[in-house]
Amino acid sequence: MADLSPSGEKVALYLEDLQVGQRFVSGAHQIDEEQIRAFAKQFDPQPFHLDAEAAKATFFGELVASGWHTAAITMRLLVESGLPIAGGLIGASGEITWPKPVRPGAVLHVESKVLELRPSRSRPDRGLATVRSETRDQIGEVVQVLVAKLVVLRRPQAESPGNP
Amino acid sequence: MADLSPSGEKVALYLEDLQVGQRFVSGAHQIDEEQIRAFAKQFDPQPFHLDAEAAKATFFGELVASGWHTAAITMRLLVESGLPIAGGLIGASGEITWPKPVRPGAVLHVESKVLELRPSRSRPDRGLATVRSETRDQIGEVVQVLVAKLVVLRRPQAESPGNP
Repeated sequence: MADLSPSGEKVALYLEDLQVGQRFVSGAHQIDEEQIRAFAKQFDPQPFHLDAEAAKATFFGELVASGWHTAAITMRLLVESGLPIAGGLIGASGEITWPKPVRPGAVLHVESKVLELRPSRSRPDRGLATVRSETRDQIGEVVQVLVAKLVVLRRPQAESPGNP
Repeated sequence: MADLSPSGEKVALYLEDLQVGQRFVSGAHQIDEEQIRAFAKQFDPQPFHLDAEAAKATFFGELVASGWHTAAITMRLLVESGLPIAGGLIGASGEITWPKPVRPGAVLHVESKVLELRPSRSRPDRGLATVRSETRDQIGEVVQVLVAKLVVLRRPQAESPGNP
């Protein structure tokens, strides 16, 4: 990870600082049954997210996290340690898949890779970065893939090293 | 909406009950600053989701909801009143866009339309339904579009009306 400068300060990357192929790895978060049930109660109240016993008679056969809970944890990890973008992480759109259910006890982290960089034609202060973020569990298996288009600011002119 | 049978019971729809072009409309949910900040604190701790004053100096210029919060509220609305699928709402994948920020006070509802239905070749008990869900605010403007592929069960043989 390259999110700390030599002086230990948090680095915030502008569009010019990103490169296609560049990779980032976040810290980790362990999910448990209490978190799964609390999220589900508020946002996805279905038996397979709410109750281990009731979940047995469902499609999943066991308690699993809501995919939107996995997405929310992924965002938290990206914001805190996974993707140090200047001005913040601002998603315009995303494609998301959940190839494997997340069970209580899973330890998740996010591995991101820059796929494409495109300066805006109409807005000279910004561009779009396409970033693929794989959320993986403790045995390295992918539980979510998010390919997001992020709005990324360009480095302000005054800060540009090549500017007088 | 067609989620109540003539007797007033909740209807749970199988793959055979869905039709391309079929529409569903959910109930409504009003979002406020407290909800926006609580979600952000837990899952998307960025200034434009956490603090109205700090948000002024950011990309958005004001406090707005995390896109993942909008997605989570959308899921809640779909589960509770928006899409009565037998066996529950089980997403395999989705494409999501956020065309307009969600501000405190917005009243959201979800309008869904079935785009495609495809029985599984390998699993005769299920299929995939592609559903476009537009989350709209109180003036009808779209704040989120989600095109999701849902795993939908086929009607069990014994229940099939055409079966002896």
